[in-house]
Amino acid sequence: MLNLQLFYFLFLFSLLTFCTANFSVPHVSVNTERLIEDLKILGQFSDGDYPGITRLLYSKEDKAARRYLVALFEKSGLSVSWDPVGNIFARWEGSDPRAPAVASGSHFDTLLNAGLYDGTLGVLGALEAVRSLKEVGFEPKRSIDIIAFTSEEVSRFGIGCLGSRYLVGSLSIEELVKLKDSDGVDFESARKSCGYTERLEDSKISEDFYSAFVELHIEQYHILEDEGIPIGLVTDIAAPALYTIEWKGPGGHAGSVPSNERQDPFLAASEFALSLEQLVLRDPKNSRATIGRVEVYPGSAGAIPRSARLSLDIRDINEESRTRVKDLSLEKAAAIARKRKVTMETSHNYSYPPARMDQRIIQVMEDSCRAYNFRYLKLVSRPFHDSLFMATKFPTGMIFIPCNGGKSHVPDEYASPDDISHGVEVLAETLARLSYQ
Amino acid sequence: MLNLQLFYFLFLFSLLTFCTANFSVPHVSVNTERLIEDLKILGQFSDGDYPGITRLLYSKEDKAARRYLVALFEKSGLSVSWDPVGNIFARWEGSDPRAPAVASGSHFDTLLNAGLYDGTLGVLGALEAVRSLKEVGFEPKRSIDIIAFTSEEVSRFGIGCLGSRYLVGSLSIEELVKLKDSDGVDFESARKSCGYTERLEDSKISEDFYSAFVELHIEQYHILEDEGIPIGLVTDIAAPALYTIEWKGPGGHAGSVPSNERQDPFLAASEFALSLEQLVLRDPKNSRATIGRVEVYPGSAGAIPRSARLSLDIRDINEESRTRVKDLSLEKAAAIARKRKVTMETSHNYSYPPARMDQRIIQVMEDSCRAYNFRYLKLVSRPFHDSLFMATKFPTGMIFIPCNGGKSHVPDEYASPDDISHGVEVLAETLARLSYQ
Ligand SMILES: [Mn+2]
Ligand SMILES: [Mn+2]
Ligand SMILES: [Mn+2]
Ligand SMILES: [Mn+2]
Repeated sequence: MLNLQLFYFLFLFSLLTFCTANFSVPHVSVNTERLIEDLKILGQFSDGDYPGITRLLYSKEDKAARRYLVALFEKSGLSVSWDPVGNIFARWEGSDPRAPAVASGSHFDTLLNAGLYDGTLGVLGALEAVRSLKEVGFEPKRSIDIIAFTSEEVSRFGIGCLGSRYLVGSLSIEELVKLKDSDGVDFESARKSCGYTERLEDSKISEDFYSAFVELHIEQYHILEDEGIPIGLVTDIAAPALYTIEWKGPGGHAGSVPSNERQDPFLAASEFALSLEQLVLRDPKNSRATIGRVEVYPGSAGAIPRSARLSLDIRDINEESRTRVKDLSLEKAAAIARKRKVTMETSHNYSYPPARMDQRIIQVMEDSCRAYNFRYLKLVSRPFHDSLFMATKFPTGMIFIPCNGGKSHVPDEYASPDDISHGVEVLAETLARLSYQ
Repeated sequence: MLNLQLFYFLFLFSLLTFCTANFSVPHVSVNTERLIEDLKILGQFSDGDYPGITRLLYSKEDKAARRYLVALFEKSGLSVSWDPVGNIFARWEGSDPRAPAVASGSHFDTLLNAGLYDGTLGVLGALEAVRSLKEVGFEPKRSIDIIAFTSEEVSRFGIGCLGSRYLVGSLSIEELVKLKDSDGVDFESARKSCGYTERLEDSKISEDFYSAFVELHIEQYHILEDEGIPIGLVTDIAAPALYTIEWKGPGGHAGSVPSNERQDPFLAASEFALSLEQLVLRDPKNSRATIGRVEVYPGSAGAIPRSARLSLDIRDINEESRTRVKDLSLEKAAAIARKRKVTMETSHNYSYPPARMDQRIIQVMEDSCRAYNFRYLKLVSRPFHDSLFMATKFPTGMIFIPCNGGKSHVPDEYASPDDISHGVEVLAETLARLSYQ
């Protein structure tokens, strides 16, 4: 009798621990070949020469990529929907469809002439996680959503994380409709030309719509590679501030005006670029400052420039030190303008606050790494991601995998099949666990 | 009898001097309003917002401008023809049509967002000179050709004086057919799309085709304005050398790579620009060096540049000192590349020899100024012109008029109606005298 009671107690205890702390998911068998093929096909929707990838929001390549993604999601038995800006949702319905869902995803737009993995790995990696969970017979409790975000990159409309910001309500309709691309095309025309004709409306998604959001992404730097560790778990995301500085002068004929009479705005821009470099070199491990866009007008060999315009991107996990770099550099830009007798105008494109990842999700991701015996490293993400904004509304976590040489936003951006496979395994395990939490 | 002989002798002597040294042309009455209206209409054929003028070779605006010019020439009773590259010739036949003709003209293409007078004044001013000579009953002995040159500016195909170089045979067909614009359109496609479908052929125009060439042009600097002198007579034309320098680095993500690990080609370009400025500031009255075209690739705010490409335009009347500036600056560019661990490539777009204007023509222009009681100044042209190449084959001269603030290649380029009128008067007188020489 005592034995029977003990047996009964042990049985109940096991059942309880199985369902909570020691919840166990069958190991998945990731089909890495299939995933990489999908990535490569998606990479073909590009306005430029492969392997350099250019896929701007609402371009014809973007439109084609959207059709491809929707077809892939539907082929895997997911129900697909989208919102007015074109965030695409592919749902694997759980046994408790009314419970807040678990979501995973990333973006599929690119900068100009960029790489194959940035963003797309988080979209197609989430699909592969779902496919491989289905293949081992896993059944989710909470539904699992794959989100393919509209435009995380700044390449078309000059602002980042457009889709995720719209989703969480941190981008107003007024801001959206004011956007224009460099050809003067406004956001609404572009959106509608891509087939998204529903009215924009303020986000109605409440904080309990998702119980968790997890994004798989390449590291875009070489810490994991240097340490030989396959998985990075993000603790914080550094956030960017973007400014535009333009200097203007009278121009003139390249043959006529003597050098000592010139008021050349490009020389002002050059002087600024070198002074900015000196400023951030004082603290190279923290502040990042980049001049990525340079436009000199009119741009003729025979004309002294009349205008030079730069983008100034500053990133830090520490908002204060980011602001200090901004203040010092804009002061310097103005001093250079005075000295060179050119005018200067600055505009502030955006500043986002840094984000902290959710401790509970980090814990689940650590458990998931252990389930597969993967070493992992907790680290800061200096690039920003849709997770920066998803974290403002939902508990959020990010899984990083190494990429070759830490290179990203370049055509030779590369992640190995093994690293991709490991990242998807950790993601699958994490999503499965979160769907029962 | 002695009186009669003396009278007879004096009569013959007067006749002789009238026909040679003291050849006299009736003063013309320039219709400045008509000329300025023509200039403004021509300015409407522009791909951009007036008053900024953009008319690139073989563009639809150029094609429309050509139709307009041909119609104007024909309306004035001139016989119009053109060559395979689209140099347009409008001939006023003289009483001795087999004698080498006198020619006057300039270009009608522009840089990007440029002014109304550069080039066009020399085309329509020559037409006004011819119209006003016709109106006072003047009849030329040598025929007078107005030449509207195809593309003096570098704005579409990257080389200057394309039309005049083709005309004098200093631009080979092999060089021409290799040209591509920045969109990759080749010269032959562009030429044919503009309606010039005849085969290109090497220049058949011999040195005795024209006895003289005279170009009317705005000064593009402010010496005449500063001195309050209405007419400049050019003695020498400084000639340009154009190079392209490109630095390349690995690029990378703006958030990831710390400043001390970057190999940023735009910072190399900036450092070069400032060192070039220092170099030419040592001798600001002679060397002119200009970075007018700057292209940074990929040009995204979130990506460290992978490439920065500059145009380097150096001009001097002294070929040796021009070469010295080139040598020193390219050495510096290479040193910067080594220091910053970026690669560098340079290409040599062109170098032209400086030109000396013809003494006999300068003498005729001086006489013409005196005929109208205009003060004049002999000066050097630092900008180059079609005259730089016409001078390689024909005796050549240039008449400058002041332009406001010396500004050129900018939308507010301006020459006053009075100055325009005086320039055309001197041109008309000069052409008339040259047609009898
Ligand atoms: Mn990115
Ligand atoms: Mn990304
Ligand atoms: Mn010009
Ligand atoms: Mn000109």
